[in-house]
Amino acid sequence: MGIKPLADRVVLEPVEEETVTASGLVLPDTAKEKPQQGKVIAVGPGSLDDNGNRSALEVKEGDIVIYRKYGGTEVKQDGTEYLIVSEDDILAIVD
Amino acid sequence: MGIKPLADRVVLEPVEEETVTASGLVLPDTAKEKPQQGKVIAVGPGSLDDNGNRSALEVKEGDIVIYRKYGGTEVKQDGTEYLIVSEDDILAIVD
Amino acid sequence: MGIKPLADRVVLEPVEEETVTASGLVLPDTAKEKPQQGKVIAVGPGSLDDNGNRSALEVKEGDIVIYRKYGGTEVKQDGTEYLIVSEDDILAIVD
Amino acid sequence: MGIKPLADRVVLEPVEEETVTASGLVLPDTAKEKPQQGKVIAVGPGSLDDNGNRSALEVKEGDIVIYRKYGGTEVKQDGTEYLIVSEDDILAIVD
Amino acid sequence: MGIKPLADRVVLEPVEEETVTASGLVLPDTAKEKPQQGKVIAVGPGSLDDNGNRSALEVKEGDIVIYRKYGGTEVKQDGTEYLIVSEDDILAIVD
Amino acid sequence: MGIKPLADRVVLEPVEEETVTASGLVLPDTAKEKPQQGKVIAVGPGSLDDNGNRSALEVKEGDIVIYRKYGGTEVKQDGTEYLIVSEDDILAIVD
Amino acid sequence: MGIKPLADRVVLEPVEEETVTASGLVLPDTAKEKPQQGKVIAVGPGSLDDNGNRSALEVKEGDIVIYRKYGGTEVKQDGTEYLIVSEDDILAIVD
Repeated sequence: MGIKPLADRVVLEPVEEETVTASGLVLPDTAKEKPQQGKVIAVGPGSLDDNGNRSALEVKEGDIVIYRKYGGTEVKQDGTEYLIVSEDDILAIVD
Repeated sequence: MGIKPLADRVVLEPVEEETVTASGLVLPDTAKEKPQQGKVIAVGPGSLDDNGNRSALEVKEGDIVIYRKYGGTEVKQDGTEYLIVSEDDILAIVD
Repeated sequence: MGIKPLADRVVLEPVEEETVTASGLVLPDTAKEKPQQGKVIAVGPGSLDDNGNRSALEVKEGDIVIYRKYGGTEVKQDGTEYLIVSEDDILAIVD
Repeated sequence: MGIKPLADRVVLEPVEEETVTASGLVLPDTAKEKPQQGKVIAVGPGSLDDNGNRSALEVKEGDIVIYRKYGGTEVKQDGTEYLIVSEDDILAIVD
Repeated sequence: MGIKPLADRVVLEPVEEETVTASGLVLPDTAKEKPQQGKVIAVGPGSLDDNGNRSALEVKEGDIVIYRKYGGTEVKQDGTEYLIVSEDDILAIVD
Repeated sequence: MGIKPLADRVVLEPVEEETVTASGLVLPDTAKEKPQQGKVIAVGPGSLDDNGNRSALEVKEGDIVIYRKYGGTEVKQDGTEYLIVSEDDILAIVD
Repeated sequence: MGIKPLADRVVLEPVEEETVTASGLVLPDTAKEKPQQGKVIAVGPGSLDDNGNRSALEVKEGDIVIYRKYGGTEVKQDGTEYLIVSEDDILAIVD
């Protein structure tokens, strides 16, 4: 996929919840800020710290993650919708 | 449980207060922001500090903690509801 | 008492002002944000600084302190009400 | 082009989406804050960090990038419209 | 006086302006946030800096200071009213 | 000119756009926060960083710059109007 | 004058603009936040940086400066009105 995120940004492909019934995870509809699941497609090199260094992100390509949609930016390529989020908006990796 | 939190995030399983009468702790209903008790299910590796290092969290798997629900994100797996919070939202460990 | 606070948090037991007439301290009712007195029951290990270290709190178990109630969280154990505050909400120690 | 951006600023020439059908990327109209594509025309030397050093930007002249228009400043030269943004407003590079 | 302030806090005893005519200083009534004069009764050890050290305050016991009342907390002991402020609320020392 | 700016401040003399047709740059009227061009008349020594050092500004006397008027302060001397801005309000140098 | 400012504060004596016609500087009445001229009467030792050091202020006693009145605090001594401001509110020194 031809999108290379900057800094601590991550490109996600949203995962339909029907497709993850094997892991038994269900995200409730009633939560005020509904968390979502996605597959990590690409990750940035990390943000600059106070000394001008970058720390690698915790997530890597292929991870299934739970994220907050708030703040993300939608892009569409070849008919597939992606979301670009900051790693801060990713709460956890689903094993 | 298949959720691996990032940074300083903690996965909690809310504890019904009837189940902790042994310790005699009661959380009042009248508090404006009602604190809650939960059991720590999984912890993240800690946030990055200014030098790109991570400091381990103070809580560990199995701890019973008092936390503020505000800011947490609910997820449900195999019929059990969990909450993902930042460690900042955890006030204390109940011995 | 079975509550171990995290970071810079302090567990306080509010002190009725009638019980401290010996020290002669009176807290006025008219202040917009009424300060309160309490006894320190337990203290956290201190917050993490930018280098990943913790500095011990200035208050210790047994201190009588003046604190701002704003921001604290009430918990009740064995019929006694406690308050969990950040050390920032504690203004002074009453000798 | 005669504009030399300061600090972490980047001069972009907006790219009409019709011109990038080869890469198949489409940016949806419905997003609340519509992301846009642009070509990097010039980059600043980077912002000062806490030690008085500058870290080079991640984008370079000629990159096609996805950016958020919010916060940018429009300038026009020889009939062409440019936008000056902070690198923070650039989300990703399109390969 | 039995109040030991924490961090960068200072205990002040407000000074009636009639009592300082010798120094000739008059604080106008018309200022939107009226500055006040007070005598320093006790000072804290200073706030923690980013390296876990404390820097001594600039004011010391006995100084007459000009301060902004905003943000201070009133306490009363043995019939005398005191104010606990942060050193940031103290503008200057009156020689 | 007798104004020596402090810290990261810059004294600008606004440039009428008719006078820069040679470079072909036109600043649109329709932008919400209209950028402006000016000539740098004097620059400050730079702001203090966390270690008490100052880093020289990127602009120098004589530069023609694009700046955001927001936040600047107007002064007038010998019939000429100047603007004092922070370097952060300067977006780019026009070659 | 008997006022010793703390940290980065500066005591100013406002200068009537009629008295500075020699330098030809005129401050317009129409500016939203009208800048003012003043003479530096006393300066503080500088604010504490992250390492617990203080950096000397850029202004010194006797300087004529342009400042923003916003945020300053008025005091009056022996019939003269002074203003205490932070150095951040001082824009430039008038030579």
